[in-house]
Amino acid sequence: MNIILLSGGSGKRLWPLSNEVRAKQFLKIFKKADGSHESMVQRMYRMICEVDSGASVTIATSENQVSLINAQLGGKVGISAEPCRRDTFPAIALAAAYLHDVKGIPGNEAVVVCPVDPYVESDYFQMLDKLYAQAEKGEANLVLMGIEPACPSEKYGYIIPHFPGLLSDVHSFKEKPDILTAEKYISQGALWNGGVFAFKLEYILDMAKSVLGTALYEELFRNYENLPRISFDYAVAEKEKKIQVMRFAGVWKDLGTWNTFTEAMSDQVVGNAVAVQCENTHVINELQIPLIALGVKNLAIAATPDGILVTEKRSSDKLKSYVSDQRPMYEKRIWGEYTVLDYRVQSDGHNSLAKHLIIIPGRHISYQYHVHRTEMWTFVDGTGKLIIDDIITEVGRGDTAYIKPGMKHAIKADTELHIIEVQMGDELTEEDIIRLDWDWGQDGL
Amino acid sequence: MNIILLSGGSGKRLWPLSNEVRAKQFLKIFKKADGSHESMVQRMYRMICEVDSGASVTIATSENQVSLINAQLGGKVGISAEPCRRDTFPAIALAAAYLHDVKGIPGNEAVVVCPVDPYVESDYFQMLDKLYAQAEKGEANLVLMGIEPACPSEKYGYIIPHFPGLLSDVHSFKEKPDILTAEKYISQGALWNGGVFAFKLEYILDMAKSVLGTALYEELFRNYENLPRISFDYAVAEKEKKIQVMRFAGVWKDLGTWNTFTEAMSDQVVGNAVAVQCENTHVINELQIPLIALGVKNLAIAATPDGILVTEKRSSDKLKSYVSDQRPMYEKRIWGEYTVLDYRVQSDGHNSLAKHLIIIPGRHISYQYHVHRTEMWTFVDGTGKLIIDDIITEVGRGDTAYIKPGMKHAIKADTELHIIEVQMGDELTEEDIIRLDWDWGQDGL
Repeated sequence: MNIILLSGGSGKRLWPLSNEVRAKQFLKIFKKADGSHESMVQRMYRMICEVDSGASVTIATSENQVSLINAQLGGKVGISAEPCRRDTFPAIALAAAYLHDVKGIPGNEAVVVCPVDPYVESDYFQMLDKLYAQAEKGEANLVLMGIEPACPSEKYGYIIPHFPGLLSDVHSFKEKPDILTAEKYISQGALWNGGVFAFKLEYILDMAKSVLGTALYEELFRNYENLPRISFDYAVAEKEKKIQVMRFAGVWKDLGTWNTFTEAMSDQVVGNAVAVQCENTHVINELQIPLIALGVKNLAIAATPDGILVTEKRSSDKLKSYVSDQRPMYEKRIWGEYTVLDYRVQSDGHNSLAKHLIIIPGRHISYQYHVHRTEMWTFVDGTGKLIIDDIITEVGRGDTAYIKPGMKHAIKADTELHIIEVQMGDELTEEDIIRLDWDWGQDGL
Repeated sequence: MNIILLSGGSGKRLWPLSNEVRAKQFLKIFKKADGSHESMVQRMYRMICEVDSGASVTIATSENQVSLINAQLGGKVGISAEPCRRDTFPAIALAAAYLHDVKGIPGNEAVVVCPVDPYVESDYFQMLDKLYAQAEKGEANLVLMGIEPACPSEKYGYIIPHFPGLLSDVHSFKEKPDILTAEKYISQGALWNGGVFAFKLEYILDMAKSVLGTALYEELFRNYENLPRISFDYAVAEKEKKIQVMRFAGVWKDLGTWNTFTEAMSDQVVGNAVAVQCENTHVINELQIPLIALGVKNLAIAATPDGILVTEKRSSDKLKSYVSDQRPMYEKRIWGEYTVLDYRVQSDGHNSLAKHLIIIPGRHISYQYHVHRTEMWTFVDGTGKLIIDDIITEVGRGDTAYIKPGMKHAIKADTELHIIEVQMGDELTEEDIIRLDWDWGQDGL
């Protein structure tokens, strides 16, 4: 089975646990039989392999998730990384071209596309296999999965089938309705559209050619920024006449709100926290300071460097509109991680910011300089090699580095390296980085 | 009226808002008529003056509260500061000796003693005046206030009067009972012991002489560490035969739990926080990161550099036993304030800690050195004068200072000065300070 997993950004519905660079699918919330924890993306990959050990899995994602995917799946999957965010049709077209041009999969083979973030069980993957087989048959150009609704919901689009059986032609699609309309749809036999479907590779490549002008991976990738923002449903599904839907009645949970997300958590309490005399309450504390929950019921509580949430679980679907835009205060990177400790805008508009950086042994931050900011580094633990303006120095606990705008610098960790960084400048953003080449293979590095 | 206000430590019952150096009585939670806020200690002082504009007020407290009291009351009160914590009898004896020896109050004048932290209204202060007048009469050696119980409570000791009238001899004292026993006491006419009483100054000075060996302020102060830990109730009240109680039926609320504390708060939400669709919920956020409370009821939520609390209000009286001992992460000092941003114990037991210091214009940190730690300072805003090993340097944004163990240093702010300080060492405590003399009046300072 060829399968494309769509790993999107997670937005604000699980704030403050997810931010634009740290999506829910990478959070290790599922306990495995051996007691260790795995993330949604790890769990889904493992279960796909259990159903089809020869599955060829490609993850369609954005560039800023690549290092996390590699960290969690260790190079076992293909990655089609969008250079920037467009909508689902360009993302799927790019991934399909990647399968054809990079992985060499022939156009007449089928492909299943599904989101990486619902909570599902093994029957779901058996259904993916059925979708795949049905698409291979070629009776229809597109075979969708229709999920039997657990309740009338405003959160999903609906598929109306012609017939009530396992397989049916699609009668029509319906946009996200209000509850009363959802009830009406369901009485007509409507199914949830979970964004799961299968097609032959050449079908979507033809679509790419006609809608985007090319089906070549290199060209799509190079020209990605100029592609239209257009959804797969709009560009393809709603226009296709030869389209079928297969009914799925198994476990399928959208983990997009705190209410549903906590249902899937294995542990009630994660991090430096205690929950005393609490009922149906989940606590995640990623801050260093302690958290105490006392005598509360039906709450989701989360504290991270981005913020603190205390929500009644059933109210959590309203969260999104109350979350403000802000820079991420915590990021995992290929070289390690950083946490913002302090951020102040001074009276004259000047900014200061303090970070704790942790660099993984053997990894390095790219050789770079900044235009707008000065950085003061204090090495508080570990050892490594500091490069400033092409000079390499051994550094360790108690050493400091003062990096002015324009000074080229990089750091490589020999043992786990902890740095307190103080930034000062008129603009303190992750974007103020000019990256340079450096030969990391040379002597002493 | 001579009055001693007991301003004790606040312990853990209002964690994380109070810590050992930052007690609840200094938190500005009461809104005044003009819209500004005042603390318990400011409110109590103001109301005493409204009842008796000539009142002579002395605050009995510990040394680490002196700068806060001065900051909030601006030198309008006497301060009797314990060099270390003993129990209530030595504290009251020291304050009485202060009244006699330092303020020159004659031994035959009466003194009222009351805690600074209950929530009370003007009738309470009229009752203090009555207690004072009754003590002046000299019918009894000790005149207590007995508070009419609002409910059977396990939190207070009880006074059983002989008679049910306004004034009575005391029949007996009862320790904090269980609820059923409290009900029984109340049916016998028992009153809460709120720790409010009056006596003639010479009475308590005689007691000090016989129990502590001296009634001289200088001697008590100098020898304070060796005084016994003994409560006023045990040393005096429970042994005294000539003792009366006056009944008080007005407003008296112990603000010692989150449930009662939030009742007295003027604002539902304080700090960088929003409460959406919440009922009977109070939120205090003293962190920089945002806090969202959504759809919750009957909660007290507090986030400070010391920790995060989410408690059902009525459960909050159980909080104390779940709070661990930890160093304070935030302190106000006479020179300004600091917040701990980051604290790590590394694998080899070495520690690192990052702080944000704010120094008030014109104020300075004392000339000092450390034995155990290295400090790396980065000045991120403001201007000031840095002294290192007797050399004075002008400093401002972007400057740094590297202070090794044994290096003498001080800093004075010209404009509000912000410093990110990184500490490294085998022991990072507020106690690792050797203070030195420095002539702050010299040229350039």
